[in-house]
Amino acid sequence: MGKILLGHGSGGRLMHQLIREHLVPAFDLMELGDSAVIELTPDVIAKDGVFLLNRRGAGDKSDLIDSGQPHNDKRGGVRLAFATDSYVVSPIFFPGGNIGELAVNGTVNDLSMVGAKPLYLSAGFILEEGFPMDDLKTILSSMASASQKANVKIITGDTKVVDKGKGDGIFINTTGIGIIPNNIDLGPQKIKAGDKIIISGLIGSHGIAVLAKRHGVSLEPPILSDTLPLNGLVEVMLSITEDIRMMKDPTRGGIATTLKEIASDSGLCLTIHEDLLPISPGVIGACELLGLDHLYVANEGILIAVVPGNLPGNPDNVSGNTADRLLEGMRAHPAGRNAAIIGEVTDGDTRTRGMVLLKTAIGGTRVIDMLTDEQLPRIC
Amino acid sequence: MGKILLGHGSGGRLMHQLIREHLVPAFDLMELGDSAVIELTPDVIAKDGVFLLNRRGAGDKSDLIDSGQPHNDKRGGVRLAFATDSYVVSPIFFPGGNIGELAVNGTVNDLSMVGAKPLYLSAGFILEEGFPMDDLKTILSSMASASQKANVKIITGDTKVVDKGKGDGIFINTTGIGIIPNNIDLGPQKIKAGDKIIISGLIGSHGIAVLAKRHGVSLEPPILSDTLPLNGLVEVMLSITEDIRMMKDPTRGGIATTLKEIASDSGLCLTIHEDLLPISPGVIGACELLGLDHLYVANEGILIAVVPGNLPGNPDNVSGNTADRLLEGMRAHPAGRNAAIIGEVTDGDTRTRGMVLLKTAIGGTRVIDMLTDEQLPRIC
Repeated sequence: MGKILLGHGSGGRLMHQLIREHLVPAFDLMELGDSAVIELTPDVIAKDGVFLLNRRGAGDKSDLIDSGQPHNDKRGGVRLAFATDSYVVSPIFFPGGNIGELAVNGTVNDLSMVGAKPLYLSAGFILEEGFPMDDLKTILSSMASASQKANVKIITGDTKVVDKGKGDGIFINTTGIGIIPNNIDLGPQKIKAGDKIIISGLIGSHGIAVLAKRHGVSLEPPILSDTLPLNGLVEVMLSITEDIRMMKDPTRGGIATTLKEIASDSGLCLTIHEDLLPISPGVIGACELLGLDHLYVANEGILIAVVPGNLPGNPDNVSGNTADRLLEGMRAHPAGRNAAIIGEVTDGDTRTRGMVLLKTAIGGTRVIDMLTDEQLPRIC
Repeated sequence: MGKILLGHGSGGRLMHQLIREHLVPAFDLMELGDSAVIELTPDVIAKDGVFLLNRRGAGDKSDLIDSGQPHNDKRGGVRLAFATDSYVVSPIFFPGGNIGELAVNGTVNDLSMVGAKPLYLSAGFILEEGFPMDDLKTILSSMASASQKANVKIITGDTKVVDKGKGDGIFINTTGIGIIPNNIDLGPQKIKAGDKIIISGLIGSHGIAVLAKRHGVSLEPPILSDTLPLNGLVEVMLSITEDIRMMKDPTRGGIATTLKEIASDSGLCLTIHEDLLPISPGVIGACELLGLDHLYVANEGILIAVVPGNLPGNPDNVSGNTADRLLEGMRAHPAGRNAAIIGEVTDGDTRTRGMVLLKTAIGGTRVIDMLTDEQLPRIC
């Protein structure tokens, strides 16, 4: 008897509940992450009549695995990342970007978060009757330029039109395919106590840019959306170390929701420090003005990475301080120049396992949960 | 200064113009077909650090092509089909199906039309605030059951919610990935004079089912949508002969628009015979009642295939009559039991090249063009 609420789309608790109760049982969703990983193993590929794959190593003889069973042997097969996102941001034009580049960058970033190199995108448009052709041209041109910057190709598309009053100008779905390098395998199950939490840039800019425009609030200086492709930064990070535990871009629901997802999925305790969070004075001021908590404001150009730390006794910390080396490399990249280590992972105790704790600037501790209501609808 | 019209989404001339003038120049669209073909060649894959592929043949030594240039050497690489479609059908529930199974079958069929074996789908939902949860459950359950029937997996998804009055209940995007067998290579450039045109089933059912429901017209007996997955039928067809020129499913714009696309793309003349078209008396009656031309009414469970014929002098006609053998095999499959040869391909002359001619039952000739107006919006 229930009805869909705006909060079902806001990235927080209601949305997770909707997905867990309805989508997961109906489908074969591999995970709740933003990218599914497809393994085209030699047996799958051979079964479908296409190809014999060689195991890694140029001189090997072809060694067809013919068990017919799915497996995770990364010596054979091609691993693809597959991610989809629909964009319904309102307004469609906002300081620093528009729905078009958001649609390209967002899916590029979802693919990048599993360590994939994004290659191809599809673009599906739902246009409302009466939508100005000039706006469509501007958006298409932004998508073309964003895909060039991100070094991906939009290779297939679809256009539908709905009657006036049955849509909202333009909605865009992009779905992407990327290739996951053979040696990369990221995920929350890899996280360990002693790991460090890195954030790649300033928080809150995208949400503030969109909401200020939506509410007709003029900020001086203006806050621009941070929308950008993260695949270049991720490439740099993976070239420094393959030993990144996991990455996630804190979009809908902000860094609070993303950190809480990571804590829940890993079953460990994440502690972050308020005074280490990179945030601009402009965003702090705008959040006060608009009555928002910056921890829950959407971002479109930053990532959170959990990486091996340098605590004593961490067995992964063999070649110097991984977190510090990563931070240095990230800061040398334009997309990571405000990167910061914001916290660390501990085992937690019976009260704190699966939780996110924020150490406030004045020495207190606040428990951080997911976004629970429709505070910020249609932010992407 | 133009605006989007409903006709821009109807599959006909306006939509083709929109795609050709705006989408093609902006993006890297490979073709105007419903599936893009991705070739993960050994060089592309190796460049991205993943894999060394063996040329076909179990005993070969690995032979890495390192030219760095894209190529079409099918001896090395994995070819994927990649297709996207957004579904905005109104009403969402109609005789014979709903938007959910349409979204699964439609993308499965787009992949199948390039000869791919569909494997994985994404599902992106745009829900309107207030949409009944029970309707969502029904639709998700239809999608689950349709994906089982089509033997594909929905492995990733996305959910967005828009404010009441800014959507229309539910829109669904599905995007699919399939594997193209090594020996399959279909396309309009393969078509030759002497080829036959086969249609796999009765025309017009889907469009009539949706439009009758939309207009509150009660048909007795009811006309049911023909929505179904075509991959099983395609598998049978390709097992009979790999020498199918091309296939296309005549959805938006009906068989007229699809045939005209094929004629334009091949530069040849397609002639079809009115008295050979498989159509039920119920659809003929309903078309008269609703004032529709059945040639332009959408279908969701049939395909048009161009195949080698048996005209004298056709060099491809070496192992008996390919068209007749295919027809026999198709009719033995549930999705093809009303299959029929409806016409043939000729070189045409300066007046008729790129055209579709309909020979009417009374001996006349009618030139068939694409759907030009918004006759049938939101049919899928």
